[in-house]
Amino acid sequence: MTTLTDCRALDASDSLRPLRDQFVLPEGVIYLDGNSLGVLPKSAAPRIADVITREWGQDLIRSWNSAGWFHMPQRLGNKIATLVGAGPGEVVATDSTSVNLYKVLSAALNMAAEDAPSRKTVISERSNFPTDLYIAESLCRERGYTLQLVEPDEINAALTQEVAVLMLTHVNYRTGAMHDMAALTQAAHAAGVLAVWDLAHSAGAVPVDLQGANADFAVGCGYKYLNGGPGAPAFVWVHPRHTDRFRQPLSGWWGHAAPFEFTPGYSPAPGITRYLCGTQPMLSLAALECGLDVFGAAASLGGMAALRSKSLALTDLFIALVEERCAGHGLGLATPREHTQRGSQVCLTRSLGPHAPPLRGSLPPEGAVTDLGRPGDGDSGAYAIAQALIARGVIGDFRAGDGAGHPDILRFGFTPLYIGFEDVWHAVEHLKQVLETGEWQNAEFNQKHVVT
Amino acid sequence: MTTLTDCRALDASDSLRPLRDQFVLPEGVIYLDGNSLGVLPKSAAPRIADVITREWGQDLIRSWNSAGWFHMPQRLGNKIATLVGAGPGEVVATDSTSVNLYKVLSAALNMAAEDAPSRKTVISERSNFPTDLYIAESLCRERGYTLQLVEPDEINAALTQEVAVLMLTHVNYRTGAMHDMAALTQAAHAAGVLAVWDLAHSAGAVPVDLQGANADFAVGCGYKYLNGGPGAPAFVWVHPRHTDRFRQPLSGWWGHAAPFEFTPGYSPAPGITRYLCGTQPMLSLAALECGLDVFGAAASLGGMAALRSKSLALTDLFIALVEERCAGHGLGLATPREHTQRGSQVCLTRSLGPHAPPLRGSLPPEGAVTDLGRPGDGDSGAYAIAQALIARGVIGDFRAGDGAGHPDILRFGFTPLYIGFEDVWHAVEHLKQVLETGEWQNAEFNQKHVVT
Repeated sequence: MTTLTDCRALDASDSLRPLRDQFVLPEGVIYLDGNSLGVLPKSAAPRIADVITREWGQDLIRSWNSAGWFHMPQRLGNKIATLVGAGPGEVVATDSTSVNLYKVLSAALNMAAEDAPSRKTVISERSNFPTDLYIAESLCRERGYTLQLVEPDEINAALTQEVAVLMLTHVNYRTGAMHDMAALTQAAHAAGVLAVWDLAHSAGAVPVDLQGANADFAVGCGYKYLNGGPGAPAFVWVHPRHTDRFRQPLSGWWGHAAPFEFTPGYSPAPGITRYLCGTQPMLSLAALECGLDVFGAAASLGGMAALRSKSLALTDLFIALVEERCAGHGLGLATPREHTQRGSQVCLTRSLGPHAPPLRGSLPPEGAVTDLGRPGDGDSGAYAIAQALIARGVIGDFRAGDGAGHPDILRFGFTPLYIGFEDVWHAVEHLKQVLETGEWQNAEFNQKHVVT
Repeated sequence: MTTLTDCRALDASDSLRPLRDQFVLPEGVIYLDGNSLGVLPKSAAPRIADVITREWGQDLIRSWNSAGWFHMPQRLGNKIATLVGAGPGEVVATDSTSVNLYKVLSAALNMAAEDAPSRKTVISERSNFPTDLYIAESLCRERGYTLQLVEPDEINAALTQEVAVLMLTHVNYRTGAMHDMAALTQAAHAAGVLAVWDLAHSAGAVPVDLQGANADFAVGCGYKYLNGGPGAPAFVWVHPRHTDRFRQPLSGWWGHAAPFEFTPGYSPAPGITRYLCGTQPMLSLAALECGLDVFGAAASLGGMAALRSKSLALTDLFIALVEERCAGHGLGLATPREHTQRGSQVCLTRSLGPHAPPLRGSLPPEGAVTDLGRPGDGDSGAYAIAQALIARGVIGDFRAGDGAGHPDILRFGFTPLYIGFEDVWHAVEHLKQVLETGEWQNAEFNQKHVVT
C-alpha cells in the first residue's frame, strides 16, 4: 500500500518541483482541472500590469513597434513550436481553437478537392471535442462533404478511398485516451488521407512531435496545459510542405503579405503568417506568453520528457490510490492504463450500487456495470461527487454521458508543472471521504451549474 | 482668428470635460490617434488586476459561473447596443472585426442564395478598409460571387439586379467621410440588396442607429473609439429579422443551443448567441468593458448626441486652425466639411511645392496639385510630417496613397471623450512649426516603421 509518507518522498525527490513556485496555487485548493483552465503564472500579474500601464497607457499606438505587438503571434508561436515538435516560423498564436480549426480544415479540403476530388468524406471520432465536430459539420455542409464519426477502434478500417481528411484530437477530452499520432498519420497517408490534429489536451502535457509524425495540420489551445489564462488565444501549425499552397478563407489584414500597404487585393503572406486574420487581443497574448515562459524554465530541467515522466507517475499514483482506497464504491477507469495511450488526465466512471440510489431515476442497462470497467449510461452520481469534491477544495470536473455508450465522467487533470504527489494523496483521500460519508448525496451538490 | 484663449474658454464650458478624468493621458502627448487605438481608461488597470489575481488566480475554473465569464460577450454586447441603435440581446462582443465580417457576410450570401440566386455580385468601396475587402474577396471566390469595388459617388448606380450585398464601412478610415447609412440602406433594399455595415470608425464616435436605418448586418471594432485596449474583441450585430434564419459557418461550441451538453451535432443557439464561436479572451474582454463603462457615465451627460456635438466642434476647430495658421504649406482637406458627411477624424493631404522637395523622387502629375483639394499621388512628405509630429508628442498617423487616385493622408482622430479644445490648438501649433521650420525633412523622420 502507498502511504502519505511515500508521496512526500516522491515530492522531495522531484527535480521539477521548483517549477511549482512559478505559479499561484490558491490556499486550500488541490487543482486537478488544469486540462480545462491552467493556473496563474506568478509572472502574469506584473507583466499584464506593465502591458496596461506602460505599453497601452503611456506608449499607446507606438507599442505596435516598441513593444513588439505586431509580431506577438509569431513570437509566441515559436515558443509553442518547441513543445509540439514544430520548427521556428511554423506556428502562430492567434484566435480560438475553433476558428483555427476552421482555417486548417478549409485548407485541407481545398487540397483534397484539388488532389483527390472524388474523396468526399471527413472522418472523426464520435467523442471528439464537440466544437471540433461542429466546425467540421459546418465545412462539410458548405463544401458537400460527409462527416463520418467512428469509435477509436474503427478509425483504421474507416480510412477508405472515399476519405479526404482524418481529423482527430490527440488526447480525448472525456477519457484522457491518447492516439498514436505517428501511426495514425502514417495509416492516413497510406490511404491517401490528410491528417488534422487538435492538440488541445496535448500541448504542454505530453510530448508531441508533429514533424516526426509527418502530420499535415494542427491546432491547439492556450488556456489548458499552457496556462495562458481564461480564453487565451489558441495556436495553429501547418506542415511547411503545405503552408504556401493554399489560402485559408479567413483572409484578414494580418495574414497579408504587405499588411501596411493597404492594398485592396489580398495577397497572402508566405508561411504560417497567412493563417493570421484580424488584430489579436494583446493583453491575453501577453498572459499566454507568461505561461509559455515557464516551459522555457522547464527546458533546463529536462523539458517535455521530464514533464511526461512526472505526469505518468502522477496519474499512475492516482489510479493506484483510487484502487487501493476507494474500492467498493463503483468507480471505473475510463482512461487507459497503458502509458502510450494515456494523456495527462485520469477519468473515472461510476456505476450504481445499492449504496447509491439513482439521482435522476434511470438505471444502467442490466449487465453493463463493471468495476473499473465502462458502466452503462444512466445516472451515476458523478456530477454530485464532482460538486462535493469541489466543496472540499478538490477541483476536478464532470462531463455528462451522451446516452450513446459514453458514460458520465469524473475528470482529473494532472499538470506536472505544478501538481505534486502529496496533492494526489489528499485528492484521493477526499474522494474516499466523499464516497464513504455519502455527502455527495446532499441536495446542494445536485444543483446544476454551468461547467466547462 | 481663433486664439488659444478661445480654445481654453471652450474647454471651460465643455460639459463633457469630466469624462477626460476617466482616462490616462500620457504627459507631453496630444493623442489624436484614438481612431486607431483608444487611450487607457483608469478603471482598466485595477479591473484587470482583479480578473488576474482573483478571478483567474484564486477562483480559477469557478469564475465561469461566479465571475460571469460565460455571458461576457452578451453583457458587453448589450452595452455596445446602446451606442449603435440596437436592442438588448442583439449584439455580442467577440472575435476580431475581420472574423465577424466573415460570419455576417457568409450569412448574407446564404440569404441571397436562397432569396435571389441570380444575384452574384457584392458591392463595396474601393477605399474600404482593406481587411474588409480581403474577407469579401475570400468569400466571393469561395461562393462564386464577384466583388465589385466602386467610388462613393458610384454606389447608387451600382445597385443593379446583379447585386446581392452592399458592404460598406460607415466612416472611411482614410478620409473620415461618413456615409448616410439610412439612405444607402434604403437604396439597397429598394434594389433588393442586403446592407452590411462596418462600424469600426463609428461606434462610440458618431451616433449610429442600426434599427432606425433598418440595416441588415453590422460589425465593429473594440479598440478604437470604444477604448477597449490593444486588439480588444470586436462586435457583431444582426437584425432580429435575420438572426435565426441562418447559421454562420464558424459554428463553435459557444454558439451552440446547449453548449454544456457536449452533443456531437451542432444546433445553433437562438438569437445573436449563434454568432459566437470559440472561447473568448477574458482579460481582453474585461478591458473592453472598462472602455464601454465610460459611455455609461457619458449617458448622463447627453450621451452620443452630446459627444457628437463636441466631436464636430473639435474637428471644425481643427480645420479652421489649420486653414488660419498653416496656409501656404500645401495642405489639403480630405475630410468633408459637411457635418452630415464627417466622422470624428480629419485627414489632410499635402501637395508638393518648391519648399518641399520630393522625398522618394516621384512628382505628382501636372495639374493635380490644389490647395485644400486632392493632390495627385506622389511623394507628399506626409509620412515625414507625421513622424515629426510624433516626435513632438502629437500622435496622429499616416496612411500611404495607393497610386490609384487616393493620396497620402495625415490622419488626426478626435475622440470627444478625452480630447479638449486646447489640445487642438497645440496640435495645430506643432504642425505649423513642423512645416515652417522644415524639421520634417530631417532624415530621422523618413525612416519607415511599422504603422497601423
